[in-house]
Amino acid sequence: MADAPATIRGDVIFDAEGRNTGGFRNDITVRRPGGLPSEVYDLPTDEGPGHGGNSSAPYPLAYFTSALTACVMVQLRAFARRLKIEVDDIAVDTRCHWERVQQGSAPYVSAPVAFTMDIDLGAAVPEADQRRLLAAAEKGCFIEAALKPGVVRHRLKIKDQWVEVRSGT
Amino acid sequence: MADAPATIRGDVIFDAEGRNTGGFRNDITVRRPGGLPSEVYDLPTDEGPGHGGNSSAPYPLAYFTSALTACVMVQLRAFARRLKIEVDDIAVDTRCHWERVQQGSAPYVSAPVAFTMDIDLGAAVPEADQRRLLAAAEKGCFIEAALKPGVVRHRLKIKDQWVEVRSGT
Repeated sequence: MADAPATIRGDVIFDAEGRNTGGFRNDITVRRPGGLPSEVYDLPTDEGPGHGGNSSAPYPLAYFTSALTACVMVQLRAFARRLKIEVDDIAVDTRCHWERVQQGSAPYVSAPVAFTMDIDLGAAVPEADQRRLLAAAEKGCFIEAALKPGVVRHRLKIKDQWVEVRSGT
Repeated sequence: MADAPATIRGDVIFDAEGRNTGGFRNDITVRRPGGLPSEVYDLPTDEGPGHGGNSSAPYPLAYFTSALTACVMVQLRAFARRLKIEVDDIAVDTRCHWERVQQGSAPYVSAPVAFTMDIDLGAAVPEADQRRLLAAAEKGCFIEAALKPGVVRHRLKIKDQWVEVRSGT
């Protein structure tokens, strides 16, 4: 019992203020409560011309796709250190795929089809280590933890082949 | 039968390419397959100095928080038109709250606590219309549709009071 590591719990909080005065442009500021003044971000969004917008800023789903990709990458980098797995470059290609269905001109209903992530940790990393690292990253990723189970699908590049990895959760 | 509106189904796809060469900076490019050249976005991420990064770009979770806020706002704006509900300015304040738990220095495990959205559609919009519009926006929001049920909580500003709205799904 004396050697049991301490359990450490922490909160992670981000606040956004979104304002829209017509059209599809949203002015959005995001900050971390208690964060540095430099940790305040203007992250506006717009739709493209094909969707009634003016392309004055990225689509909301562009931010989402970057966020999901990056969140997993951050955990891979951080946990490689903690698990003492040597990882050089990390490359992740993500496709976020949804469908939307509507009757006539009624509001549409949307659903995720799959968010697939192809993760290349480099051929020098042994397969067992790649799998161990990905398993930890999945559990650590804040965004994956909030998504419906089964929506995110991961593949690892093992001996030049993409191999689907089924998570245990 | 002759008057039944047609069912229209569409795909919504975003692709990201993420690259990391060490540290917590991720270079990420997002595009819509088949989209315009202007619809390609460089959306890099970094961590703040308190988390081992250099604040060279927003946190992944800052993008996520903007994306969730904006996605709901887009549906509110679009569906107000479809439902013929007159809405002037829209203000949405979002708090995304997670917790993370770790044993000693092992990789942490994260979980969403709640993503709360306070939605002000303006006092001029009748309560019934506000509720009808929010119900449609929840179903249309691509990000909400991918999140675990119950994680997102909405409040509407009704007669100067914030009222929690339980979704039917």
